[in-house]
Amino acid sequence: MAQPEFWVSIGSTYSYLTVSRLPGIEETTGVAFDWRPFSVRAIMQEMDNIPFAGKPVKAAYMWRDLERRAAMYGLEPVLPAPYPLKDFDRANRVAVLARRDGWARDYIRESYRRWFETGEPAGGEANLAGTLAALGRDPAAVMAEAGDDAVEAAYKAATVEARKRGIFGAPSFVVDGELFWGDDRLDDALDWLAEGQVRRR
Amino acid sequence: MAQPEFWVSIGSTYSYLTVSRLPGIEETTGVAFDWRPFSVRAIMQEMDNIPFAGKPVKAAYMWRDLERRAAMYGLEPVLPAPYPLKDFDRANRVAVLARRDGWARDYIRESYRRWFETGEPAGGEANLAGTLAALGRDPAAVMAEAGDDAVEAAYKAATVEARKRGIFGAPSFVVDGELFWGDDRLDDALDWLAEGQVRRR
Repeated sequence: MAQPEFWVSIGSTYSYLTVSRLPGIEETTGVAFDWRPFSVRAIMQEMDNIPFAGKPVKAAYMWRDLERRAAMYGLEPVLPAPYPLKDFDRANRVAVLARRDGWARDYIRESYRRWFETGEPAGGEANLAGTLAALGRDPAAVMAEAGDDAVEAAYKAATVEARKRGIFGAPSFVVDGELFWGDDRLDDALDWLAEGQVRRR
Repeated sequence: MAQPEFWVSIGSTYSYLTVSRLPGIEETTGVAFDWRPFSVRAIMQEMDNIPFAGKPVKAAYMWRDLERRAAMYGLEPVLPAPYPLKDFDRANRVAVLARRDGWARDYIRESYRRWFETGEPAGGEANLAGTLAALGRDPAAVMAEAGDDAVEAAYKAATVEARKRGIFGAPSFVVDGELFWGDDRLDDALDWLAEGQVRRR
């Protein structure tokens, strides 16, 4: 079976939950997901899929639901977090670079933590500087490299791959060809990985 | 605390899961929800909230996700069920009438069963005739009464009430002023009812 994939796009709000709890799950279960940054925005725009912009009632619910579920996982975000992000593409290009070099998980997790727990928008100067420093990376060098055409091409290629898998939202999980969408489907994805079905509850 | 509410709109696909499993949960827990039929379509149109029409990738995922989750609950639908429904307003008007007379739960459950398990669209002639007969009701008499202005007014009033609660989708649950959206939030709603928070998992 191929390695299970976690398709993550910095900018998605509910992904805060996944990004925060998946590392612990990976440690407990011994399952390592391939963290795949991509542009969910590009795909959603193509599909005219607009979850919250111009939908204040739905957006208000999202923040409240996120708050209740964060508490359920023992997380302590300061909500609402800055939203939408201005520099999500930059945040994701750094993630693409980080994946190539093996530190995507730590980068994504820390940039979400700063975004949701200290109010620094992911992809912004303060968040990037703080996140990269916390990871022992040189912010100036990383930022320069993240601007390369090769990184942009890899970001676009990842988005093409996501589209091929039928992905239309984030977070998404792919396990043995099965697609699962949403933080609330991570348990289903883990069930699928363990026994090829969603466990009866 | 006010009685917990289950806001249900015949036409919603994921509601099949809730409608099928909630009666058993009510029996096990001793919690009786107020089953409140309304027009989620009216609210979603106002909000320009279009989940599946013109979104084939998302719709395909919905059916697959529904299939996996139905199996998880031990349900055996024939998928995809006829969708979208043509006569959803009629189906819901009968539900509004049934609620007034105390048989909404059985009606909604049976009409969904026929829609998802035998392929008879809810609100259509065959479904209504079969569902009402199964409930020992006279289809002709019920259909005549469901066409009354009073029933139409009650249907509209229920939709106004749903809007006031911040409801934007179905199924939804309201427990002590807290709104929960989606079959996958029923457990959260039950937690809230029991202890005023979503239980740590």
